[in-house]
Amino acid sequence: MSRNSRIILGSNQYGKAEVRLVKITRDTARHEIEDLNVTSQLRGDFEAAHLDGDTAHVVATDTQKNTVYALARQGVGSPEAFLLRLADHFTSSFDWVSGGRWAADSFGWDRIQAEGTGHPHSFVRNGQAVRTAVVVRDGDTAHVIGGLKNLTVLKSTESGFVGFPRDEYTTLTEVTDRILATDVAARWRYNTTDLDFNAMYDDVQRLLLEAFSENYSLALQQTLYEMGEKVLEAHPEIDEIKFSMPNKHHFLVDLSPFGLDNPNEVFFAADRPYGLIEATVLRDNASDAGNAWEGIAGFC
Amino acid sequence: MSRNSRIILGSNQYGKAEVRLVKITRDTARHEIEDLNVTSQLRGDFEAAHLDGDTAHVVATDTQKNTVYALARQGVGSPEAFLLRLADHFTSSFDWVSGGRWAADSFGWDRIQAEGTGHPHSFVRNGQAVRTAVVVRDGDTAHVIGGLKNLTVLKSTESGFVGFPRDEYTTLTEVTDRILATDVAARWRYNTTDLDFNAMYDDVQRLLLEAFSENYSLALQQTLYEMGEKVLEAHPEIDEIKFSMPNKHHFLVDLSPFGLDNPNEVFFAADRPYGLIEATVLRDNASDAGNAWEGIAGFC
Amino acid sequence: MSRNSRIILGSNQYGKAEVRLVKITRDTARHEIEDLNVTSQLRGDFEAAHLDGDTAHVVATDTQKNTVYALARQGVGSPEAFLLRLADHFTSSFDWVSGGRWAADSFGWDRIQAEGTGHPHSFVRNGQAVRTAVVVRDGDTAHVIGGLKNLTVLKSTESGFVGFPRDEYTTLTEVTDRILATDVAARWRYNTTDLDFNAMYDDVQRLLLEAFSENYSLALQQTLYEMGEKVLEAHPEIDEIKFSMPNKHHFLVDLSPFGLDNPNEVFFAADRPYGLIEATVLRDNASDAGNAWEGIAGFC
Amino acid sequence: MSRNSRIILGSNQYGKAEVRLVKITRDTARHEIEDLNVTSQLRGDFEAAHLDGDTAHVVATDTQKNTVYALARQGVGSPEAFLLRLADHFTSSFDWVSGGRWAADSFGWDRIQAEGTGHPHSFVRNGQAVRTAVVVRDGDTAHVIGGLKNLTVLKSTESGFVGFPRDEYTTLTEVTDRILATDVAARWRYNTTDLDFNAMYDDVQRLLLEAFSENYSLALQQTLYEMGEKVLEAHPEIDEIKFSMPNKHHFLVDLSPFGLDNPNEVFFAADRPYGLIEATVLRDNASDAGNAWEGIAGFC
Repeated sequence: MSRNSRIILGSNQYGKAEVRLVKITRDTARHEIEDLNVTSQLRGDFEAAHLDGDTAHVVATDTQKNTVYALARQGVGSPEAFLLRLADHFTSSFDWVSGGRWAADSFGWDRIQAEGTGHPHSFVRNGQAVRTAVVVRDGDTAHVIGGLKNLTVLKSTESGFVGFPRDEYTTLTEVTDRILATDVAARWRYNTTDLDFNAMYDDVQRLLLEAFSENYSLALQQTLYEMGEKVLEAHPEIDEIKFSMPNKHHFLVDLSPFGLDNPNEVFFAADRPYGLIEATVLRDNASDAGNAWEGIAGFC
Repeated sequence: MSRNSRIILGSNQYGKAEVRLVKITRDTARHEIEDLNVTSQLRGDFEAAHLDGDTAHVVATDTQKNTVYALARQGVGSPEAFLLRLADHFTSSFDWVSGGRWAADSFGWDRIQAEGTGHPHSFVRNGQAVRTAVVVRDGDTAHVIGGLKNLTVLKSTESGFVGFPRDEYTTLTEVTDRILATDVAARWRYNTTDLDFNAMYDDVQRLLLEAFSENYSLALQQTLYEMGEKVLEAHPEIDEIKFSMPNKHHFLVDLSPFGLDNPNEVFFAADRPYGLIEATVLRDNASDAGNAWEGIAGFC
Repeated sequence: MSRNSRIILGSNQYGKAEVRLVKITRDTARHEIEDLNVTSQLRGDFEAAHLDGDTAHVVATDTQKNTVYALARQGVGSPEAFLLRLADHFTSSFDWVSGGRWAADSFGWDRIQAEGTGHPHSFVRNGQAVRTAVVVRDGDTAHVIGGLKNLTVLKSTESGFVGFPRDEYTTLTEVTDRILATDVAARWRYNTTDLDFNAMYDDVQRLLLEAFSENYSLALQQTLYEMGEKVLEAHPEIDEIKFSMPNKHHFLVDLSPFGLDNPNEVFFAADRPYGLIEATVLRDNASDAGNAWEGIAGFC
Repeated sequence: MSRNSRIILGSNQYGKAEVRLVKITRDTARHEIEDLNVTSQLRGDFEAAHLDGDTAHVVATDTQKNTVYALARQGVGSPEAFLLRLADHFTSSFDWVSGGRWAADSFGWDRIQAEGTGHPHSFVRNGQAVRTAVVVRDGDTAHVIGGLKNLTVLKSTESGFVGFPRDEYTTLTEVTDRILATDVAARWRYNTTDLDFNAMYDDVQRLLLEAFSENYSLALQQTLYEMGEKVLEAHPEIDEIKFSMPNKHHFLVDLSPFGLDNPNEVFFAADRPYGLIEATVLRDNASDAGNAWEGIAGFC
């Protein structure tokens, strides 16, 4: 029991969440679009606000929103670079702001194909994955975490699951040919801020898809590790990658009551429950992650 | 007031909703995938079930689910063709089933590109749009409605809104250059069942995207109509097309308090409220729609 | 085939959707809260907007939003009464607006209990159900449809399902004791506009819950009908009620592999697929529904 | 750059997520219902699975699901107590399982009131909040975290925001009377496992609601802190409480263009962006949290 204790304020952060920003670059007739959902959260000396309702240090969340839009006037460039600029702005503008967390989801758009060519100002949203980015600033240290989510992939063969331990509650049968499907969520930590983040993102996504597709999978854990390894081998600028991947079960339907066979052709795609595999692949000499990973949901 | 009335059963239907079906065709090493969410609902003589709890006519919803999987063993082909087979099965198997409604959403998958080629059995889900299909069977008549939803498109220029009426509650200013964005939901009614529905779907989607992109838009209503017209002109097999399209507002952010201009570059993408434009484009000699459109949400 | 046809505009409507309105009544220190999500859609002569982009008749959706807020200044009263006022306003203000559809979801709030009494201005949202209302105006005729959705109910016994027909695809076993669970969505049509709609809503919700709970259920169809009958018997002001109710399956888990019995104690609550039961209960002398039910999703 | 590094496996966990469990206790005619969504994740020696696809240690996620149902046969009792039993089971059954994370959301049900009394076996789901529970087991140490989410509260007065710093991007005006609304998400860490967790939950929820309602709020940060302080003062069994609370903006609608005043009566409830306030309130002598908080989303 906690007798004779004093109640205090612990870790805290605050800001504006989900600022929907669409930036059109129209220097030429061939427009470009950047579509982000930005969250800004400040850390520092905010004790008086909590204990006394003293707002002298509380940079309004409305001001944070305005700043997102104002800084976007000069261009976004990449989500990561934009978040780094936000971090610089807030930590340099206010003495009592020692750091914070800035995050963005971004949504891809393709040009509409009309009469055989990409249209200069008409776009269709590409729903294949959502790009994620986080910058955590702690004093002078900045952590940059790239990522993606909702990248749904499936192998219709070359996956099995055998050899697992059996106890009194085990009823699962071994299979050497099954569907393997998951929604890839991955977050990778860069060890530098001087990068073409857009090119990095495209290449990591490509490598993740390739690694998922190429080998027989003895377990989703193995496939996950191969995906991480492939990214780290190709990119020395990345020190660490974390995955959170559901095992989206596709159950073979028993058609035998209807006098039919089912040689891995007809499946029931289940919603819940699902397997959930989470792991980190990293370098043995990875730079210190500090508080970079705090508060990121669903990654162990 | 409804004095001295008798209480009776009116229109009704029942069945199994959202049967998640994944069909892998693996006749060769190059697999094919079909991914559907199927709903089956029967209509007919079900009065005893409602009034007396007499289940003698109630084809179990579990049986309807089993039937979806069993019929899929012979292949899907296209959502529309598969729903027509389900409709035939149920109306021919049970005397008291006079019709019903069968619907499917289907989800597209692309082959993962690995080492420059499409992988034979690894796929990534294509989130650009969800294909929809409905078959309404009423006695011997079958209505087939193709469609799509969640096709998000945006033009960064070539759209305006001027000349609208002004009353005491009007504050909107006229603009000749704005972002126009919407999520296209469209449903088109075929006048025949003897079609390559997959080829039709691909072409209608292509035409909708082209029509959205090509002209200056004086109002979303005008663009909607052009989209419908283009589809009907190209495809005599389609008699009617309905749209439900939000006007997803992108508000130009006022950066003048910060000493910045904003020449249509920085936008706030709003969630709610949104405009909502719904209309039907059809042939003057369109076949009778009967009860085809009943119960389809959000289309007037 | 539709040769030599002319392409025309069919039924259409447009407006502003999901206008989030919170109205505080603060005539005394004991505040009242009304929380609505309002959609306004106009019907009438809008052909020129579709065919030529002529906006002279297009009452801006922004103006419709402003009107919602302006009319709320005089109070809401009940969702139904408020929608009737909106319908009157638009049809009387613009010659070419012949009717339309106005809808609202409303969200209930309870007073926070503090020191044994309901707080005068602090509220907690009551998530038990969402109230729905629709007014369809067609010339001088107004249809008013009350309703609710997301009312999740469950009986842990007094439900069974036996006697259903068996065919080659039937594997379901008969049960005389099961869990019956559903999310009630109901829409009822009033035959008058001169009513205390709030009192009506409360009483209909009470009757639906009572009817669900009181009898053994031989089929969800039977329970649905009893719910409708109970409402119509109590309220002559209601001519018709429609239901859309999923059968949310709770499957008894087979614990026998673990040496355990399971006398209806441990269940798996499944997501998809689910049964879906839709039906109308009405008076034999019900007033003409006209186009009242068009475009309401998921009700047959 | 990370030259000459070796790639290794870092932190990891896996299991079955969202096992939907409904437990009916029917020892008497007055049934009880417990409704949980359970996630089980194991930690320990799983390196071989990741590196070599060796599944000898991989307790199947299907086995974890079975175990949830089998252990529920003996009763749930409280979410926290049930998760502790799961943790004991897995860590004691498998040598290589050194710990893990078990979590549950639980959904409240009220008895349906029929003829003035609570029905013995008919229930209606109470949507006011979702109860959350987490047990983190690390060797012999068990951390128990109670919580709730989606508790939506609103004060229609007695809230303001003035005195905040103004910079070049600040446009917000000061207000002394506004609506304050939030969705409370709170997680509190117990310092003992020997508790009536259900009684604790009810009392913490009561205290949170009371604290929200009672004082003038100078900032959401202040109200948050008062809520935490009130809980810690009343319950020595709790060492720490974390909050994540959106500031759900309700903007006063400017009705002056329509010749109307708006004395805090008509509001627009905005979706995005929203403020987001996150903070921890704890005892200065709180027990060591270890890895208890890792992987909990949205709490700093």
